[in-house]
Amino acid sequence: MSAEKSLKEKLYVIIFEAETRLGRLFDVVLLWAIILSVLCIILESDDAIGAQFGTELRVAEWLFTVLFSAEYVLRIFCAKKEMKYPTSFFGIVDFVSIIPTYLSLFIAGTHYLLVLRAIRLLRIFRVLKLARYLQESQVLMKALVASRAKITVFLGGVLTIVLIVGTLMHMVEQGNPGFSSIFKGMYWSVVTMTTVGYGDIVPQTHLGQLLASFVMIMGYGIIAVPTGIVSAEITNATRDSRKNLTCGECSSKLLAWDSKFCHKCGVEVKS
Amino acid sequence: MSAEKSLKEKLYVIIFEAETRLGRLFDVVLLWAIILSVLCIILESDDAIGAQFGTELRVAEWLFTVLFSAEYVLRIFCAKKEMKYPTSFFGIVDFVSIIPTYLSLFIAGTHYLLVLRAIRLLRIFRVLKLARYLQESQVLMKALVASRAKITVFLGGVLTIVLIVGTLMHMVEQGNPGFSSIFKGMYWSVVTMTTVGYGDIVPQTHLGQLLASFVMIMGYGIIAVPTGIVSAEITNATRDSRKNLTCGECSSKLLAWDSKFCHKCGVEVKS
Amino acid sequence: MSAEKSLKEKLYVIIFEAETRLGRLFDVVLLWAIILSVLCIILESDDAIGAQFGTELRVAEWLFTVLFSAEYVLRIFCAKKEMKYPTSFFGIVDFVSIIPTYLSLFIAGTHYLLVLRAIRLLRIFRVLKLARYLQESQVLMKALVASRAKITVFLGGVLTIVLIVGTLMHMVEQGNPGFSSIFKGMYWSVVTMTTVGYGDIVPQTHLGQLLASFVMIMGYGIIAVPTGIVSAEITNATRDSRKNLTCGECSSKLLAWDSKFCHKCGVEVKS
Amino acid sequence: MSAEKSLKEKLYVIIFEAETRLGRLFDVVLLWAIILSVLCIILESDDAIGAQFGTELRVAEWLFTVLFSAEYVLRIFCAKKEMKYPTSFFGIVDFVSIIPTYLSLFIAGTHYLLVLRAIRLLRIFRVLKLARYLQESQVLMKALVASRAKITVFLGGVLTIVLIVGTLMHMVEQGNPGFSSIFKGMYWSVVTMTTVGYGDIVPQTHLGQLLASFVMIMGYGIIAVPTGIVSAEITNATRDSRKNLTCGECSSKLLAWDSKFCHKCGVEVKS
Repeated sequence: MSAEKSLKEKLYVIIFEAETRLGRLFDVVLLWAIILSVLCIILESDDAIGAQFGTELRVAEWLFTVLFSAEYVLRIFCAKKEMKYPTSFFGIVDFVSIIPTYLSLFIAGTHYLLVLRAIRLLRIFRVLKLARYLQESQVLMKALVASRAKITVFLGGVLTIVLIVGTLMHMVEQGNPGFSSIFKGMYWSVVTMTTVGYGDIVPQTHLGQLLASFVMIMGYGIIAVPTGIVSAEITNATRDSRKNLTCGECSSKLLAWDSKFCHKCGVEVKS
Repeated sequence: MSAEKSLKEKLYVIIFEAETRLGRLFDVVLLWAIILSVLCIILESDDAIGAQFGTELRVAEWLFTVLFSAEYVLRIFCAKKEMKYPTSFFGIVDFVSIIPTYLSLFIAGTHYLLVLRAIRLLRIFRVLKLARYLQESQVLMKALVASRAKITVFLGGVLTIVLIVGTLMHMVEQGNPGFSSIFKGMYWSVVTMTTVGYGDIVPQTHLGQLLASFVMIMGYGIIAVPTGIVSAEITNATRDSRKNLTCGECSSKLLAWDSKFCHKCGVEVKS
Repeated sequence: MSAEKSLKEKLYVIIFEAETRLGRLFDVVLLWAIILSVLCIILESDDAIGAQFGTELRVAEWLFTVLFSAEYVLRIFCAKKEMKYPTSFFGIVDFVSIIPTYLSLFIAGTHYLLVLRAIRLLRIFRVLKLARYLQESQVLMKALVASRAKITVFLGGVLTIVLIVGTLMHMVEQGNPGFSSIFKGMYWSVVTMTTVGYGDIVPQTHLGQLLASFVMIMGYGIIAVPTGIVSAEITNATRDSRKNLTCGECSSKLLAWDSKFCHKCGVEVKS
Repeated sequence: MSAEKSLKEKLYVIIFEAETRLGRLFDVVLLWAIILSVLCIILESDDAIGAQFGTELRVAEWLFTVLFSAEYVLRIFCAKKEMKYPTSFFGIVDFVSIIPTYLSLFIAGTHYLLVLRAIRLLRIFRVLKLARYLQESQVLMKALVASRAKITVFLGGVLTIVLIVGTLMHMVEQGNPGFSSIFKGMYWSVVTMTTVGYGDIVPQTHLGQLLASFVMIMGYGIIAVPTGIVSAEITNATRDSRKNLTCGECSSKLLAWDSKFCHKCGVEVKS
């Protein structure tokens, strides 16, 4: 029992952590396996490639699925608390990454869900020991969350404008098949105001082109709003996070955000 | 008379406020009715759907209109001051939201104006008790108003550039039907400078493509200006509104803009 | 002689200033004449309208030109210093605004230059007494001038990238007529990196689409740079101009940038 | 030996520096030669021009290559330390700028690599004595490097979203040839989210257009993130660099970032 527990502990260190040589190797192999398996799905979806290498790609898919299933079972086996891993974020993602292959035996088309495997790549942060990156993504997340209310107000306003503009264009461009319903007018309105501008639907009357010009210039101003919101939040969040920069060696507060060396112990600061 | 007044007061609380259970229910039902009625109008505008479900959708439209008319009469009836509601912003919006259906009996095509009902959805702010959202929209509004003068200067400049570029392209692209008048050249100019780029009108001569490239890179720089303006205003407005953050419980000034708990009474701060 | 001088002075006040009732009227009439004359040129350029109302529009053009010529002569006549007006910015613009009509008698096509009249509309700032707008445009101008060096560096870099990307696409998309020369590749590159995306030239090979995807995501990041530059400058310029806000009445420094009333004399501050 | 050394030193001053009249002339001639040679390559790539002036352009290319080869040999000859120049950044760029012409004798198509000559134009900074520009590009570079981690996190997230959106569209738009593989769906996704919007691939089903609308509005918000990041960094970097402005004459710290004259010695400040 003690030996088994020790095996469990060894496996835990290899599978869940990236501090040891073996643990790091395990994670790197896993990441490459994920990337390759996603590439296989992308390749298989192409008709020409699917016809030529269909069998090989399907074999590869099953190999990756068996591999990931084994990994999933191992993770459950060596997890410290019984149900902590399967109910964690990565536990659910890992489960969703293997189940579509088995489902595809019964239901056609489900195997496309396998691209959700890409989410597993988030593990890369642990391998690269990118605590820094995690911190950065927290700055981004904090900025987005802080802007949540402003973004909701903004989206609500945009949808109302899209509805009214779409209806107007449907009324103005009577004979134009591209504006045959309010829904199509709203689709055109989104395509135009986001400055995507496919050109599959374009106004053809002079009045329609004039109205479209107004909508574009308005969209011009509107695009400035979310940029401004996020910009302001990131500026604030960055200033905040920089005020609290500390030396990794002696933990004393750095004097300037772009200090290259700690003013107390002289150690070089890794930005 | 006293009983009637009391009824009036009860109705007022239900219809105009969202603090009681009934008042909240009334507003939620109303919001869903508005969304459904707008969806009906969007669906009816589609030829295929209109042909199949035309009668049902027209019946629904009349039902919603009768419902909203009753609500409008009730609002006038129980308003505290006689003429305050019909002349208020929401009073006018509510009137405009019901009149097109009646007008459509006499004048064809007016019922599209019903999409203006979407503006009534602004009431959602009251239901969700989103004082926060209102505050945020005030920050946005303040930022836009503060930028008003800069935006006017900017739009004037853009229009002059659009006029000159449109004329130049009309002169350069002689045989191109897309540039057959200065107006079309200006339309192309707006489509290009806002980076929408439909592709329905494109330069075909080498000189035209060179000129278009300059216009695009210029538009590139120009798009930075409104973004910069709004960005700067939002940064300032955000900093301002954050300086004045107070605890909702004891009203003492918060020490940092991202405080999670009040430093005086320890109550969690709802951001 | 004294009477003439007095006439000159009266005319000067009417024509060059906008403080008196007559001077204001003169400027408003002038601005409408400019707008109408530009509209005439736009309308005449349209083949259908030009064929139907060609004579009327050409008569209108000559009327406006005679009117503006008279104004130009009057301005020279009543200017205080002999050669100050004709060599000033507005003097040159006014001259350029009338000469193309006369030139069109000898050289065809020159009358399109008349759209340069639009620049005369800058006079609107004086009529609306928009010292504020002028100040704002100075903030904008200051921001642009302060960014000049950064923008030059940026444009140089963008042109080099455009050249290299255009050549690469010309090499990759061998059979595609849209990339038949490096120049076309560079044009496509500008269209893509500015996110205009007409769609008249698109990559058709898998390798080309992959390369194009990289270029787009790169352009995505690149568009952030000028926005960031101008944003930062406007933020700085705004902060600067706000530090120096003074009361228009007693000239005492305002305490906050959003003060509504002067804290010394209580006069309302016109923002 | 002494004479030769003196020749070497003289050549060094002319070729590597731009302080003397001859050194400046050498650099200006060189820059024009680079621009002309790049123009020749662009012109030659056009089929019509290539057919008519092919021989002349090829002669010009060889002339420029011989010129640049001579310059390269001279630079190696007069460099102070034997191997410092050929292994420096500009040394490698110079080598890459001449070798493709020789290679094109053996391998076809390599001469397009000659456009890499454009990188040599970076020398312009030295000619124009634009220490200021170099400083500005350092501000830009510093801003980009400081944003590196955030940009990596951002790109990783964007790629995952592109993959998932591309797969969804491939599933939704079954019959549409534009979405026949996940790869094409991803290409469409990049084209849409960067707001380029060629229109070569567009959704045709109602569900696809609805999904596309969500993707566009999402892309709308996403475009705000890199802009916000770079904006915040440039704002910080600009503030930083401005805090340390010193007079070029007496080195005393300037009082304000927009000082026109030094407050100590009165010398005009070159911004």
